[in-house]
Amino acid sequence: MSVITIVGAGMMGAAMAFPARGNGHEVRLVGTHLDREIIQEAKETGYHKTLKHQLPEGVKCYQIEELAPALEKADLLLGGVSSFGVDWFADHILTVIPQTLPVLNITKGLVHQGGGQLLSYPEYYAQKLGHKKLSLNAVGGPCISFELASHDPTDICFCGEDIALLRNMKKLFKTSYYHISLSTDVRGVEFAVALKNAYALGVTLAIGLSKKRDGQEHYNSQAALFGQSVKEMSKILALYGCGSQNLSLAAGDLYVTVFGGRTRKIGTLLGMGYSFDDAVAQLEGVTLESIVIAQRTADAISALAEQGKAKPEDLPLLRHIENIMQGAPANPMPWDAFETEMQ
Amino acid sequence: MSVITIVGAGMMGAAMAFPARGNGHEVRLVGTHLDREIIQEAKETGYHKTLKHQLPEGVKCYQIEELAPALEKADLLLGGVSSFGVDWFADHILTVIPQTLPVLNITKGLVHQGGGQLLSYPEYYAQKLGHKKLSLNAVGGPCISFELASHDPTDICFCGEDIALLRNMKKLFKTSYYHISLSTDVRGVEFAVALKNAYALGVTLAIGLSKKRDGQEHYNSQAALFGQSVKEMSKILALYGCGSQNLSLAAGDLYVTVFGGRTRKIGTLLGMGYSFDDAVAQLEGVTLESIVIAQRTADAISALAEQGKAKPEDLPLLRHIENIMQGAPANPMPWDAFETEMQ
Repeated sequence: MSVITIVGAGMMGAAMAFPARGNGHEVRLVGTHLDREIIQEAKETGYHKTLKHQLPEGVKCYQIEELAPALEKADLLLGGVSSFGVDWFADHILTVIPQTLPVLNITKGLVHQGGGQLLSYPEYYAQKLGHKKLSLNAVGGPCISFELASHDPTDICFCGEDIALLRNMKKLFKTSYYHISLSTDVRGVEFAVALKNAYALGVTLAIGLSKKRDGQEHYNSQAALFGQSVKEMSKILALYGCGSQNLSLAAGDLYVTVFGGRTRKIGTLLGMGYSFDDAVAQLEGVTLESIVIAQRTADAISALAEQGKAKPEDLPLLRHIENIMQGAPANPMPWDAFETEMQ
Repeated sequence: MSVITIVGAGMMGAAMAFPARGNGHEVRLVGTHLDREIIQEAKETGYHKTLKHQLPEGVKCYQIEELAPALEKADLLLGGVSSFGVDWFADHILTVIPQTLPVLNITKGLVHQGGGQLLSYPEYYAQKLGHKKLSLNAVGGPCISFELASHDPTDICFCGEDIALLRNMKKLFKTSYYHISLSTDVRGVEFAVALKNAYALGVTLAIGLSKKRDGQEHYNSQAALFGQSVKEMSKILALYGCGSQNLSLAAGDLYVTVFGGRTRKIGTLLGMGYSFDDAVAQLEGVTLESIVIAQRTADAISALAEQGKAKPEDLPLLRHIENIMQGAPANPMPWDAFETEMQ
């Protein structure tokens, strides 16, 4: 039996308790200062209020002030904060843990360091930590938290530098419903699964556009934007030196994100004609990682374009998303710009 | 104004009348012997009974006996038969048309010639025609017939050897809702959009499996199978010398096929536990191109494997689909076989 400490008790952090606890490990779920009410209720009743699931029996819950005992003799630290908690996680958690404690990060995103340089979170953490060397691993792939809690099967990917360590981490989490591929291509995996958040926003615009047009949900337009998204993700991966072998992971993850929840809601609202500010206001309190990732990616591509290293016209859907975030309407979709000639 | 003759008055053939007629062209819709009732009703009322749409005003309908006048002074022949009508189309239509009449084929599929050799339909037609040289072009990409009839936008691809001719054909069909990319990579496009039919069956198994498990539709498992499908399609495209640039087309087309209709129905039934024979029986009268394509692809891969040119274990989802078609149950899904290690 191993001890797995999860810091960040949002939906996805908490959902990882299911395979871990299912394998009989000790699971300690530590809320950040933003998770205070979640942890309070979970301590009292075992119910996770945002995941809307009873946590597996035996999961131990901790408020952030109880971090020290929660980390005692831990074998793995699982980083479950949202994109907005990445700096807090680096500054308050990664700096205090022992170098011998491996980290598995489920937060998805990219950091734009200016000049077009994008970093995945494991890369960003390593940079922030400077001389302190940690084993920084990450999870990517199609997995919506409440589906994981419902034991709907999936196949995701653990990535990190040390394949032997990845294999050990796999043993901790692999269950009949949580299947785990392994990859030492951290950058490729993390870029792929971050980009899909931006493009899920693009695909779901079609839902709102068709609802606005005739009140129905149609699939031709969603599918065309899905294909365009895969095409553009492939181009961005290539721009950042990531191989195309992660495209299937990006496509699967894009699929579930289109159906999964938060991004679908804002994409649909934007497609229906709400302004960006109005759509964001309607979703108050909801973490919009898709927006953050889309904005950072668009900024980075613009910076590369200024240096002559990227052509924004090769990424017309990303440009359209960027324009929408700056106040432009979702309609008209730049369909003509998606047409290509291949000879 | 051009004259466009569509042979094959099923849903997709008829749906192509919408962009063509919308651009003011003369559209002649010719039913095969299987479309007799469709054409009879359309002649009387203009209503297409399987598409469940009123045809655009001015579309002229013909029974197969009226083929000769329907072809008179035609500028383009659009081949709209199903996979099951390909030989009939080659033997009875392509042999009688003048060599100056270009053909645009919407039938999707592959022919296994034994020994692992797969041909796209344009290639198969060219082979059958021998010395008679026709301009054999094709359409691929995300487009469900009734969505096209409803003017839901999409972006598909016309492929053929002559880019100038493709540009002319694009002018005939391009509308505000039918966007057209062009490619001279006929084999790549046609393989990509055929394979997606086989894999749509694979993805939709998850719908039935999760319904059977807890009565709900879940998306983690669909997404994981979607990603696995993209991975396997990429491998099959590579086996047949097709570049990865068509993967986005395959992914978009896979997406719409999962939601579009016939394949979803049989995949769901199989996932729920119906035997292959029972599931097919339940869909009596429905054209199951996905089954044909899956079987031919599986046969071809087996033949390649016998020659040491392919590893069936690299395509575990295709193998599972093949086993199901031979009577095996959909459950258990071979999740463990989808797990990979990349170093």
